[in-house]
Amino acid sequence: MANKPAIPKGTRDFGPKTMARRNYIFNSIKKVFELHGFNPIETPAMELRETLLGKYGDEGDKLIFNVLNNGDFLAGKDISQSQSAQLVSEIAEKALRYDLTVPFARFVVQNRNEIQFPFKRYQIQPVWRADRPQKGRYREFYQCDVDIIGSDSLSNEVDLICIVDEVFTRLNLPEISIKINNRKVLEGIAEVIGASAQLTSLTIALDKLDKMPVEAVEEEMLRNGIAQEAVEKLRPLLALKGENAHKMQFLRLFLADSQIGRKGLDEVQYVLDHAKTLKINSLVFDVTLARGLSYYTGAIFEVVHPALNSSITGGGRYDDLTGIFGLPNLSGVGISFGADRIYDVLEAENKFPESVEQSAKVLFANFDEALSEIAQLLRELRKADVACELYPDAAKLKKQFKYAEDKSIPFLAILGNDELARNEVQLKNIQTGEQQSLSIQDLISYLS
Amino acid sequence: MANKPAIPKGTRDFGPKTMARRNYIFNSIKKVFELHGFNPIETPAMELRETLLGKYGDEGDKLIFNVLNNGDFLAGKDISQSQSAQLVSEIAEKALRYDLTVPFARFVVQNRNEIQFPFKRYQIQPVWRADRPQKGRYREFYQCDVDIIGSDSLSNEVDLICIVDEVFTRLNLPEISIKINNRKVLEGIAEVIGASAQLTSLTIALDKLDKMPVEAVEEEMLRNGIAQEAVEKLRPLLALKGENAHKMQFLRLFLADSQIGRKGLDEVQYVLDHAKTLKINSLVFDVTLARGLSYYTGAIFEVVHPALNSSITGGGRYDDLTGIFGLPNLSGVGISFGADRIYDVLEAENKFPESVEQSAKVLFANFDEALSEIAQLLRELRKADVACELYPDAAKLKKQFKYAEDKSIPFLAILGNDELARNEVQLKNIQTGEQQSLSIQDLISYLS
Repeated sequence: MANKPAIPKGTRDFGPKTMARRNYIFNSIKKVFELHGFNPIETPAMELRETLLGKYGDEGDKLIFNVLNNGDFLAGKDISQSQSAQLVSEIAEKALRYDLTVPFARFVVQNRNEIQFPFKRYQIQPVWRADRPQKGRYREFYQCDVDIIGSDSLSNEVDLICIVDEVFTRLNLPEISIKINNRKVLEGIAEVIGASAQLTSLTIALDKLDKMPVEAVEEEMLRNGIAQEAVEKLRPLLALKGENAHKMQFLRLFLADSQIGRKGLDEVQYVLDHAKTLKINSLVFDVTLARGLSYYTGAIFEVVHPALNSSITGGGRYDDLTGIFGLPNLSGVGISFGADRIYDVLEAENKFPESVEQSAKVLFANFDEALSEIAQLLRELRKADVACELYPDAAKLKKQFKYAEDKSIPFLAILGNDELARNEVQLKNIQTGEQQSLSIQDLISYLS
Repeated sequence: MANKPAIPKGTRDFGPKTMARRNYIFNSIKKVFELHGFNPIETPAMELRETLLGKYGDEGDKLIFNVLNNGDFLAGKDISQSQSAQLVSEIAEKALRYDLTVPFARFVVQNRNEIQFPFKRYQIQPVWRADRPQKGRYREFYQCDVDIIGSDSLSNEVDLICIVDEVFTRLNLPEISIKINNRKVLEGIAEVIGASAQLTSLTIALDKLDKMPVEAVEEEMLRNGIAQEAVEKLRPLLALKGENAHKMQFLRLFLADSQIGRKGLDEVQYVLDHAKTLKINSLVFDVTLARGLSYYTGAIFEVVHPALNSSITGGGRYDDLTGIFGLPNLSGVGISFGADRIYDVLEAENKFPESVEQSAKVLFANFDEALSEIAQLLRELRKADVACELYPDAAKLKKQFKYAEDKSIPFLAILGNDELARNEVQLKNIQTGEQQSLSIQDLISYLS
């Protein structure tokens, strides 16, 4: 092969430095999930096509990667008149998962007898979409989903807010806002302004308020069949600003005549009250938040960071996720962390700790001397939980030094025959250039 | 969908208990890799077909899962006369990776200018093969590969032996044997018995010695064109048993006239000597070990466990892995841990620690009382690194208790209004039934 090899467009290789940073994000998220008693699951990369099709709308179906049947997949098939769209179902029974939500629903239904409900699971795996690749959009990317299924208690919503707060505290991003809303509040609003039949158009328009001027949003509503009178009734809501308590007070009046609206406010209030007790100050009641909506039946969450114009985490409550696979009435609530976007924010804000890239703590220089003693010392260090390595070849010291620098190894150790005779190790701090002599025992305690 | 949903044959869902055990294996392996200064990389699940084809032989090519091009993949193509085999290359430019070795070689060549050599990487990702599913063989499974590329120093072989020893020590499997051989030794043997032209047949037959009687192995050699005289010369070697030193002594004589054979013995000796100094007693020089061979140019490794009739880890040195992508002369050495087989051994030997399945350490019972105080206490506990959860609903205590049992949560905590008034928590040990009253502060220190 003469050409430089390549990878499919929209996919990525992750080298050591990027992986270290990605693992920092994933490990922080996982750690918080586990502190909250969530367990991991994994599902296969390939699902049967029938499991995935029809779950993401027509556009979604087109973005699914189909996997060709193996062997003589055309055997016994007359394809001379086939079009692509029909042929797929003849020659591909499997496809790559498009998200983690549908596989999770499938998992719950398929394993319902082994699962302990309420089921608290997290899942961190790649998904594949044949989207047009562009900045920040890839054809293979990880999703980090956490869900509780089989409980309609609002304490689950509180739990998820705590998780979000703890993850972003760990990642040193206290400047995030956690937005909360509730589908019932949106239904209540539609009811009192007389636009219940246009609920979807209404919420799609509301969702754009943070990106478009109020006038443009109002125009869009009118274009989508919402009455002038309804838009006018809505106006004070569009201008609503201030503290959560103030917004709540306003909406109590605004939704006084809507039963479902009042229910929604009670639910939001419950979460706000708990968050206040727990001193989670980043929680913001945002009555315009909808996130596509169709999916959600109760709480709706979204996390935004001022440095990024899109959400970095989102989710909500859904009452019938597993109904599509024949197991109705199982209420769930969950959120999904956008690892790629969190990565971009941490990079833009220079918030990756330097230590993240460090692999070994010390590199032993190789002079083709005392190799057996170095091997024993390395073993001692590893027993003391100190990551360490020997440069494998007796190369020029400059080259070995550069290797340590490039791998962000903070110390270079020198143990040759001379040092051995004196029973000591020379330890050089790569960044400061400082050098010290240590006995072998002192070296182990110094580094561990 | 009326039918119970399913997954493609040969693939698996991993629920919480299995995942906990799998993560125990992966985390143990990862930890050791990192203690040795190896860095993780990840490559995309899909590679271009041209990257994979021709690298695994004709049989391998047939086992590759091909991914259909998206959109109107038939557009402008006359397929009326097509056969499956030709059509694939017309309608599928991507495929799922078959192993981690070829993507690693592709990665190294593609990213050669960003990589710091010697490059020490590990990679733990799933691979896909359209093999006929059977016990212990799946169509999706993880590989755990660790390689050093760009150094021909034997200290790398020593490093890998240490890694194997430390991984299986951590996994409490000291009864493993690490077999070592060297391609040069095999070439030397072929040379001195006069069967250099039949090296491959010779090693394939030798490789079967642990599964077949000597007579059958000899017959196979004769059938494959190895001369009677050569087989007779080989006989003492087939009977070779005993300590490494004894075998080495025998081979020094046997290979005295073969330059390459002597070189191979020197290489094996180097690793044996270091292992001895490091007290790694599981290393066994096995002159019949070949592992397919074609690939390897120096050391060959394999790890076996008495409970399993196949290897659980294997690898070796290869001198021209990246040559297939146009970057020759980059020597590498690596091993691959078979996570599924290690899982089977740990399960058969009952060696999974019980604590592996534990998720939260304590479950707070829910009586719809003191929920705000419990939420605050949960947050304190998590700050102290104690995984904990609240049962989300005020269900019957029996049900909540069973939930804790099923999730292997060791403690149930009770904090209702009465306990709150007395400023204490009731803590019940689920296994022993023992119960104690603790102040909130004592609870945190008791559990952390």
